[in-house]
Amino acid sequence: MAPSVAVENLNPKVLKCEYAVRGEIVIHAQRLQQQLQTQPGSLPFDEILYCNIGNPQSLGQKPVTFFREVLALCDHPSLLEKEETKSLFSADAISRAKEILAAIPGRATGAYSHSQGIKGLRDAIAAGIASRDGFPANADDIFVTDGASPGVHMMMQLLLRDEKDGILCPIPQYPLYSASIALHGGTLVPYYLDEKTGWGLEISDLKKQLEDARSKGIDVRALVVINPGNPTGQVLAEDNQCDIVRFCKNEGLVLLADEVYQENIYVDDKKFNSFKKIARSIGYGEDDLPLVSFQSVSKGYYGECGKRGGYMEITGFSAPVREQVYKIASVNLCSNITGQILASLVMNPPKVGDESYAAYKAEKDGILQSLARRAKIHLPQKAIEAAKAANKAPDAFYALRLLESTGIVVVPGSGFGQVPGTWHIRCTILPQEEKIPAVITRFKAFHEAFMAEYRD
Amino acid sequence: MAPSVAVENLNPKVLKCEYAVRGEIVIHAQRLQQQLQTQPGSLPFDEILYCNIGNPQSLGQKPVTFFREVLALCDHPSLLEKEETKSLFSADAISRAKEILAAIPGRATGAYSHSQGIKGLRDAIAAGIASRDGFPANADDIFVTDGASPGVHMMMQLLLRDEKDGILCPIPQYPLYSASIALHGGTLVPYYLDEKTGWGLEISDLKKQLEDARSKGIDVRALVVINPGNPTGQVLAEDNQCDIVRFCKNEGLVLLADEVYQENIYVDDKKFNSFKKIARSIGYGEDDLPLVSFQSVSKGYYGECGKRGGYMEITGFSAPVREQVYKIASVNLCSNITGQILASLVMNPPKVGDESYAAYKAEKDGILQSLARRAKIHLPQKAIEAAKAANKAPDAFYALRLLESTGIVVVPGSGFGQVPGTWHIRCTILPQEEKIPAVITRFKAFHEAFMAEYRD
Repeated sequence: MAPSVAVENLNPKVLKCEYAVRGEIVIHAQRLQQQLQTQPGSLPFDEILYCNIGNPQSLGQKPVTFFREVLALCDHPSLLEKEETKSLFSADAISRAKEILAAIPGRATGAYSHSQGIKGLRDAIAAGIASRDGFPANADDIFVTDGASPGVHMMMQLLLRDEKDGILCPIPQYPLYSASIALHGGTLVPYYLDEKTGWGLEISDLKKQLEDARSKGIDVRALVVINPGNPTGQVLAEDNQCDIVRFCKNEGLVLLADEVYQENIYVDDKKFNSFKKIARSIGYGEDDLPLVSFQSVSKGYYGECGKRGGYMEITGFSAPVREQVYKIASVNLCSNITGQILASLVMNPPKVGDESYAAYKAEKDGILQSLARRAKIHLPQKAIEAAKAANKAPDAFYALRLLESTGIVVVPGSGFGQVPGTWHIRCTILPQEEKIPAVITRFKAFHEAFMAEYRD
Repeated sequence: MAPSVAVENLNPKVLKCEYAVRGEIVIHAQRLQQQLQTQPGSLPFDEILYCNIGNPQSLGQKPVTFFREVLALCDHPSLLEKEETKSLFSADAISRAKEILAAIPGRATGAYSHSQGIKGLRDAIAAGIASRDGFPANADDIFVTDGASPGVHMMMQLLLRDEKDGILCPIPQYPLYSASIALHGGTLVPYYLDEKTGWGLEISDLKKQLEDARSKGIDVRALVVINPGNPTGQVLAEDNQCDIVRFCKNEGLVLLADEVYQENIYVDDKKFNSFKKIARSIGYGEDDLPLVSFQSVSKGYYGECGKRGGYMEITGFSAPVREQVYKIASVNLCSNITGQILASLVMNPPKVGDESYAAYKAEKDGILQSLARRAKIHLPQKAIEAAKAANKAPDAFYALRLLESTGIVVVPGSGFGQVPGTWHIRCTILPQEEKIPAVITRFKAFHEAFMAEYRD
């Protein structure tokens, strides 16, 4: 009898998901990975290390103290009855933990919550959104999730019926979207960020890609916009956002706004505007545009990837459609309470006057400044010239050399947008913890050799 | 232009999921719910409250102190450097937290982990399994998950290609399986637990249902067995488990063993045996049977539903198939670290000689004894006779009356198996926290009226 479970009889969507990771460096990395399998020993390393997703705490970034104080008190509330606690925890962490516990029925941080998340925490998140945007937000619109990814999967599961349903996605993009679209059996309709408009979304290109897809019989359901685009600073201009909002309304598209990098802006003259704020600013209400905003505790200065917290704010969906979203959420019962608490904290951090404020502000600024510094590489002029000769952007040249020498996959900043004359790589660590020391060692050795080779 | 997102253009699998909840009481409840929509005010209540999933901490069950001490220390590790901590936390919680932090690269409880979970925690889980079963367990076989549900979804996503793929599931069952099969587009092939064999799985019935499904062109991929079946005590006999294991091997089925209730055994002469232990006991190795065991921190005496922790142990899958499981896991990055830590703790609780042991043992025994007491209802003889006259089991009679009077949906114990002459209901609280006080009030009033009506 044939084996009951073999690659040949698995869900083909799962198998297909493998081919959904895009971008020049990643595709080159996959080629090298194949080479390693067919010709072991043919490269100066024996495995590929994908460092293209962000994991700051694994690289030594410390969590924000206030957040962790509150989590510890909520995990073990009997600490609140002890005298020693006052000397171990800040006063506002103690009062915040008490507020949160009071918002949870039975103070039960170990109970399943409402499938959208604990109501009191959603109230806090909605208040944080309203204060950020200057427009009202409603706790009933908030679905607290285990990070942004499950929210994205839920929307793909909701919208995609078969391969004739498409989602407009930016290229290059974080592989979450391509993977999720593949897993749910839809079609990724790519659009390209335009360097000439400061890596804005050129509406004419969006329109072209949309019409192209429609001419092939694809029913395009939604547009994914990632804004800010990544930690190196691509922030859409307000005008561009207005055009995107109008485009979605006119074309009948759901706007899926990935806004997880809302705190990662390193340029003084740029400002984050949520798509909901933009839509409301131009007078669009609930009936004009189905809009989902994703936020995560993993990004920004919080960097709490392992806590798996986040939310999606859903507006402009009819009640029956929203019920279907609720049903999908309820099949997984609820997101983890620790992540729910963190999501409420990142949207309502300490304020001026709170005991923790000074320490919180110092930690936040330190992390953001350090991220901004680390986002840049100072490349010698010779390396820039060598890159030019190879017809590559200098950071792409660096990234390709890094990959070929070490197997480490990073994303060049030129694929994301950067201030002219500065070069960036997005270098992060995938969750294969036992490999982290090797990454650091190999990366350091490569960088030293590269800088020596191209010393001015 | 038609609305861009409407119920009519959503994924039909999501819509279908709605009809996947089964069982007499739940179907009756759905009927009443429809009646409330079409004829408001026609019933003595104005909404249906589904109390058919378990959520002990929302009803006042306290978490195990040791577990929460360790979580708080891992959330805020700088506590470990403070003198006051020694008086606030037990010595073994402190040493366990240190061990756990040492097992996490960079002590980073806020970093994404390996997509299967932190290696050191998987080692601890594997050690717990090995000590429970007396057979080796391997950390590479463990996938730590956000509770058991995501693990079940991952397996359904892996195995189900289309509606011609079927999964054998017990009826009645927890709606997770029907919902997950519907969401992933497969077919639920029901089998029925047999009262005459102490609610065992009659192999002849399994075989009949399997052949029946095959004759309809269904490719049956897996058998779901929930053992123990629910908190009231249905525990499969060892012989029956051996037959099930052989049946799966002979029929080429993946055995999906839902073992989340492994600590919920309230009868002295019954004992939990994992299916892996049974398979190994009869000499089956890796090549004989693809077997997945699900465990959760939500059940047992732990009851940590909101922490979303659990794992699946996968054995007997080929390396290429396991890679596909890993890929699905990696699309969601990793499960939450708090839940991962808890999963390692429930599989390695304090031991004799540890400072916390006495307190831990007292808390555990108290919870399990209280659950055992609460699992039974003492019904008056007159009620039993009234049930007989209505051709119902007494607890089903009670559950139907409860539903009709209050809208509260519980599961009668007669659908799960119980000691003759005892009656049970599975009464639990769904995550709609704001409704909990109403449930308690309505339930109490109903119970008093019922007992008064049938007083002996």
